[in-house]
Amino acid sequence: MNIDKYPSRLLENAVNEFAKLPGIGRKSALRLVLHLLRQNVEEVNAFGNSLIELRSEIKHCKVCHNISDTDTCQICSNSSRNASVVCVVENIRDVMSVENTQQFNGLYHVLGGIISPMDGIGPADLEIDSLVKRVDKGEIIEIIMALSTTMEGDTTNFYIYRKLKDKEVKLTTLARGVSIGDELEYTDEITLGRSLTNRVPYESSLGK
Amino acid sequence: MNIDKYPSRLLENAVNEFAKLPGIGRKSALRLVLHLLRQNVEEVNAFGNSLIELRSEIKHCKVCHNISDTDTCQICSNSSRNASVVCVVENIRDVMSVENTQQFNGLYHVLGGIISPMDGIGPADLEIDSLVKRVDKGEIIEIIMALSTTMEGDTTNFYIYRKLKDKEVKLTTLARGVSIGDELEYTDEITLGRSLTNRVPYESSLGK
Repeated sequence: MNIDKYPSRLLENAVNEFAKLPGIGRKSALRLVLHLLRQNVEEVNAFGNSLIELRSEIKHCKVCHNISDTDTCQICSNSSRNASVVCVVENIRDVMSVENTQQFNGLYHVLGGIISPMDGIGPADLEIDSLVKRVDKGEIIEIIMALSTTMEGDTTNFYIYRKLKDKEVKLTTLARGVSIGDELEYTDEITLGRSLTNRVPYESSLGK
Repeated sequence: MNIDKYPSRLLENAVNEFAKLPGIGRKSALRLVLHLLRQNVEEVNAFGNSLIELRSEIKHCKVCHNISDTDTCQICSNSSRNASVVCVVENIRDVMSVENTQQFNGLYHVLGGIISPMDGIGPADLEIDSLVKRVDKGEIIEIIMALSTTMEGDTTNFYIYRKLKDKEVKLTTLARGVSIGDELEYTDEITLGRSLTNRVPYESSLGK
């Protein structure tokens, strides 16, 4: 690969930086950079500065470890939310997914990952001790485990269960079953089997 | 769509900026931003600054209009290149494509687009007058038209041909024919027909 093929060092730098992002190859990177070259200076400055500010100024909420502009995030500092229910999630995106359902009015606890020996992530790398400390304060009535339904998620669930099972807190997990809109013939056997075992009274499926 | 769902204004800004890029939706933008959040501050600063510098410092070569770090680009100022042959291309990417073949040792002329009435691009929006001026200096022996083989490319070719046909310069275009590695049954009729009409002596197909 001839490195001289870029007509400009500035262009090459920008392409190199874009190509470091996951899922963006050198051809796409060049396309994005040439797009930016056609925008006006102010817009490109705004883009560049938004990234620099993001990384240098963003904070993690000291209560739930969600990312935040302030020491305590908007959710934790919102007094209209129910502080006695805490939803445990893997990452920031999962907070946003649960928030988007508009079905949850409690607080969160962001673990920062899940236990995954294959990736070298153990319990000590996650915010599990701080979860136990939050529970120890005695204000939390229910912990909702909302982790991925994968082996790693199940492992993490079980680890947290063992840490919390002797404490005065109710542990629940998300319901698992057939997705809404799914046809039975395309549902995998494990999901279908579990949704049979955990079948619910018809009335409760009506919502309310 | 609930705008509050982003836990941070800084995060939201960065997502908005990424989502302005072509082919990047809000989900991908968030994924990229969360990736950057996991990088260290220096790397993200380097990314942001590379974009800011790119846009504010990059120049266009005053001879060929290719992008450049200097007033005259590396190619135009390279005295070992043949200044009497000029390859006319649509944009910067096409310069890079031709350079990558390592088969061309002349100079370029970047039009900055092709004539496309549908997109409101006429001859006056392109660097055609400056091409005519370059030819008028009398140092150019051959102009190679290397535009896309589309209707717009053909229109632009013809426009430039009319501008230059009475001048002391040879006008050529890229050979059109069956792509190397293509099977005949999958070649479109127009290409195949034209490559029959413009057939060449067998010896010349051997390279040299």
